[in-house]
Amino acid sequence: MQRKIYLHMQSRQEAQERFWAHFSALKTGEETISSRKACGRVTAGPVSAKYSSPSFHSAAMDGLAVRAEETFGASDENPLSLRLDTGQAIMINTGYPLPEGKNAVIMIEQVLLGADGKEALIRAPVYPWQHVRKVGEDIVATELLFPTGHHLQPSDIGALLTGGCATLRVRRKPKVVIIPTGNELIELNEELAGIPAGRIIESNSAVLASIAEEAGAEAVVSPIVADDFAAIKAHLLKTLSEDADLVIINAGSSAGSSDYTVRIVEELGEVLVHGVTIMPGKPTILAAVQEKPVVGLPGYPVSAIIAMEQFVVPLLAKMQGLALSQPVSVSAQLARDVPSSAGMEEFRRMVLGRVGEQFVAVPLKKGAGAITTLTRANGMLRIPAAFEGEKQGRLVDIDLLVPQAEVERTILCTGSHDLTLDLLNDYLRRQEPAFPLASTHVGSLGGIMAIKDGMCHLAGSHLLDPADGSYNTSYIRKYLPGEDVRIITLVHREQGFIVPKGNPRRISGIHDLFADGCTFINRQAGSGTRVLLDYELTRNGLDADGIIGYNQDEYTHMAVAVAVLSGKADTGLGIKSAANALGLDFVPLVEERYDLLIPGALFETPMTQAIVQIIKTPSFQQTVEQMGGYSTRDTGKEVAL
Amino acid sequence: MQRKIYLHMQSRQEAQERFWAHFSALKTGEETISSRKACGRVTAGPVSAKYSSPSFHSAAMDGLAVRAEETFGASDENPLSLRLDTGQAIMINTGYPLPEGKNAVIMIEQVLLGADGKEALIRAPVYPWQHVRKVGEDIVATELLFPTGHHLQPSDIGALLTGGCATLRVRRKPKVVIIPTGNELIELNEELAGIPAGRIIESNSAVLASIAEEAGAEAVVSPIVADDFAAIKAHLLKTLSEDADLVIINAGSSAGSSDYTVRIVEELGEVLVHGVTIMPGKPTILAAVQEKPVVGLPGYPVSAIIAMEQFVVPLLAKMQGLALSQPVSVSAQLARDVPSSAGMEEFRRMVLGRVGEQFVAVPLKKGAGAITTLTRANGMLRIPAAFEGEKQGRLVDIDLLVPQAEVERTILCTGSHDLTLDLLNDYLRRQEPAFPLASTHVGSLGGIMAIKDGMCHLAGSHLLDPADGSYNTSYIRKYLPGEDVRIITLVHREQGFIVPKGNPRRISGIHDLFADGCTFINRQAGSGTRVLLDYELTRNGLDADGIIGYNQDEYTHMAVAVAVLSGKADTGLGIKSAANALGLDFVPLVEERYDLLIPGALFETPMTQAIVQIIKTPSFQQTVEQMGGYSTRDTGKEVAL
Repeated sequence: MQRKIYLHMQSRQEAQERFWAHFSALKTGEETISSRKACGRVTAGPVSAKYSSPSFHSAAMDGLAVRAEETFGASDENPLSLRLDTGQAIMINTGYPLPEGKNAVIMIEQVLLGADGKEALIRAPVYPWQHVRKVGEDIVATELLFPTGHHLQPSDIGALLTGGCATLRVRRKPKVVIIPTGNELIELNEELAGIPAGRIIESNSAVLASIAEEAGAEAVVSPIVADDFAAIKAHLLKTLSEDADLVIINAGSSAGSSDYTVRIVEELGEVLVHGVTIMPGKPTILAAVQEKPVVGLPGYPVSAIIAMEQFVVPLLAKMQGLALSQPVSVSAQLARDVPSSAGMEEFRRMVLGRVGEQFVAVPLKKGAGAITTLTRANGMLRIPAAFEGEKQGRLVDIDLLVPQAEVERTILCTGSHDLTLDLLNDYLRRQEPAFPLASTHVGSLGGIMAIKDGMCHLAGSHLLDPADGSYNTSYIRKYLPGEDVRIITLVHREQGFIVPKGNPRRISGIHDLFADGCTFINRQAGSGTRVLLDYELTRNGLDADGIIGYNQDEYTHMAVAVAVLSGKADTGLGIKSAANALGLDFVPLVEERYDLLIPGALFETPMTQAIVQIIKTPSFQQTVEQMGGYSTRDTGKEVAL
Repeated sequence: MQRKIYLHMQSRQEAQERFWAHFSALKTGEETISSRKACGRVTAGPVSAKYSSPSFHSAAMDGLAVRAEETFGASDENPLSLRLDTGQAIMINTGYPLPEGKNAVIMIEQVLLGADGKEALIRAPVYPWQHVRKVGEDIVATELLFPTGHHLQPSDIGALLTGGCATLRVRRKPKVVIIPTGNELIELNEELAGIPAGRIIESNSAVLASIAEEAGAEAVVSPIVADDFAAIKAHLLKTLSEDADLVIINAGSSAGSSDYTVRIVEELGEVLVHGVTIMPGKPTILAAVQEKPVVGLPGYPVSAIIAMEQFVVPLLAKMQGLALSQPVSVSAQLARDVPSSAGMEEFRRMVLGRVGEQFVAVPLKKGAGAITTLTRANGMLRIPAAFEGEKQGRLVDIDLLVPQAEVERTILCTGSHDLTLDLLNDYLRRQEPAFPLASTHVGSLGGIMAIKDGMCHLAGSHLLDPADGSYNTSYIRKYLPGEDVRIITLVHREQGFIVPKGNPRRISGIHDLFADGCTFINRQAGSGTRVLLDYELTRNGLDADGIIGYNQDEYTHMAVAVAVLSGKADTGLGIKSAANALGLDFVPLVEERYDLLIPGALFETPMTQAIVQIIKTPSFQQTVEQMGGYSTRDTGKEVAL
């Protein structure tokens, strides 16, 4: 093991400029394809029409084809008769060729046909070429249909075919080969019965392939290669000798003892960048081997994706002659402080929604290893290297990861966590319009504060008042005095001790937490569950200092259950559905009420009303009851403040 | 032939509501696919994780795995020695499983290794679980990864695989079958040597298929079916008996004698809508046959595309459980009046650009038959049925058809037309960043007015002052007094008479326009070419009244050439390159200067400078000279005002 040293550490901008400049002349080759299949492709040169459209003079209306000069003089006073039997006037449908010698069309609505069908009366003249679509009115043979570098859209296919171009020259899709490396990686397939100890499911290659395909490339994922200098080198050389336009090696891009990529590309070509001052994404390698771009991406999924999007996707666009797409961004108010290390540009995943007139952005966890920080995010905050973070309440620019309309439909839910919120989200998404429910958890008291600050649409809360056994109301009166807050009960639920299968420590009540060697995992301060624990301790005259692990805390019921499952703790206080979900046992302690708190001003909005309607449905309530540990006897009822 | 009668004519909103409501419960079926290939698909139900991630406690840093309790008490004053040889501390790389009995990692940077490798000195304690990625930190087995109706993005694939979902249930792609109908249609292929008289290349099906595919559907185009009631009916029934989810018949959707679609679907099912008060797109049929949506789309390409996007694309989204996408719109100043018929909602194709701080929108032609009005457009103006149009200078909302960044790079070029502008566009698009050049033609004087009104970035002009033989300068001084306008010469070019191959009327000079029966096609008032003609007539003491067709006009050189090619006129005045393009002959009359006029305030912008640089290159100038009829001796030079 050695200290990690990046010899070419650069800022994102420096790295992008260096990498792209090196390959500024690199374009994929050309190929001829059928115009019918050309949507989404990029023209390799100017495309000119072979035929004119229309290719003949045609009727633009249903009516009579005539020679305009023979209609002159017709008026209401002096109607003019045109002969149909001699061919002086000829019936014609829209789109049909104008007969030889005719140069105008009289609309059928302006014609009085004789009963014998031999003549027609008109009451106004037509001028030459009236209601005639002339040759070349749309497209003139030889004219430029599309310039070089045009990104073909569906209607363009119509112009190509109409202009007589059955095929055209386009840029070949760049072929991106992704090489997953690592001894710890296993491939997920239907047969895999479980994850062997110490192994990790290889997932980055499919993500990187999807991103490359969205960028217009053809992506190929090679088999997993072991962490072995010679094996990776041989595989890279083989890939380059085939027809790869760009190669990605993932991972091994850092500077540790088993990180081979940088040494391999150094030996075979030129390392342009090793290490970028971005977080996540620092251990990125940008190199040129045999004048092809070779990229080493970090192993953590978020790092790999961010580095892919920052460095590779724009290069793929350039190779195809496509304009770089720019993210849409909105100005949003930060729901919490976002500290950041100076010297590193940080990409923080955010959940955004619009609360009233203002976009609000809630930061998700930092961890580059947590793919769910990306899948849950709908926006990205970039904190420049010179900043040490941003403060709660500040307006910041957030790049959107989804269409803005989806952000505007997103319901920001915070406060306490309950598993039925996932079910509620699923029901909300089945509706039309779909309202995504984005939950972030800060505990019940944190939720009340978020409502006070206007940072959410609703908050879950189960704060017990020991004085009278009530839930939530006394806290709202205390912390949100005079404010219009509506309280809708979501569920009653059992709280109790989550214990391993079989309850090996035979925990049956709160006194058992003080048994010799028993380890506990707590919830964070301000959570309703911790309030409940403290209340039960006080009620029983017990001192928290005697509990091993009282100061170790987690933020959700599921995290407590995971701590018990993994042996980090013997037990923790939580809801029954969390124990059920992980196959753990549960020792009930108390039933409590869990409410949704909603600012009065938002209560009548479609998103809030969708929630209120859904939780009243028998379908929702039955599913909740089936989860175990819940009662829906008051679900959907409003609690008076 | 009969008057066209729509029995179910409705507004767009009524038609959409009726059609979508009828199929509100219609969803495509489900299928199981590989998660690796699921990007872009929509979940058919909630997706839960099978495995937790991480699936084991692992080191989050390179360092020493220890039991935290054994590090307590370590400080700068009292460094603590940990044994490596006994396994008290164990070297560990990031991502590796935490050895049994260990519960924390000390970063390698905070460790002093003994020379013998048997022990390590630390100067600070670690707390339990420090630098450890705990089981389930990212994903907890059983937790909801994605709700129903989730549109899967690349990073979601990572979460699916990491969560152990090798496959998942998604909505099947709707299968859309497109049936082109019409006796006049021929299929374009490489063998087609020309378009037979009266025939039209079938192009709509490929456009509609591309739109359907962009909407997430699988599209199948059937062979062309003749205009025959029985044939179309049989084909529709066969298609429905196979596995089509939605059928499009194109065209025959109007109410004429050979428009069979409405009668066929009336016989087989229910016509929900026939005729919509939109333009283009009026003859649209929305129907249900065997409880499947069957749509009759109009034959004109723009009509078909607009009706497809208004009615079919949203239904395809609903069938997949996808949210409807909403167009981005910007507020733009109208460069010209846009009259519109009351009672019809009109969709006008527009070219937009940003001139200074303001978006400017230039209307394109109305014709529903002209596909190029869509391929050239980057925005769409919707004029409500209650309006009779919009006035020049008004701010209107325009839906963007391309990314806003592309609109902001678009150069609005107006004034007179010259074929070298197409070449300039091609060169501009090859650059990075690419600046699309959007040309609309209003004649030289119209261009000067557009500059005055701030409605363009540049204008082509070749206005001859008969008094002194100068070009443009006297007009600018007159119409733009005191304004800062820069004049850059684009080309010198030959103007002359465009005549059919072989010059059958032996036109050799302006006097020949007065020969018996000779027909002429003029350019519009305000065009430099018409100014030139009038000047030559005056100079020769000739009277325009003696020219047959002097009052017939076209807006571009190519349109004049087409008029000559098609026999509409014997000759017209125009540039040599237009005659060359269509294989016509050319009788030179005079050489003139064609300049680009650029508002001074825009002269130093990147887009203008890109033009100035390109036209100075030998490559551009050589290509222009090769077109014939041009001299580049002063190209790129600035003319003093």
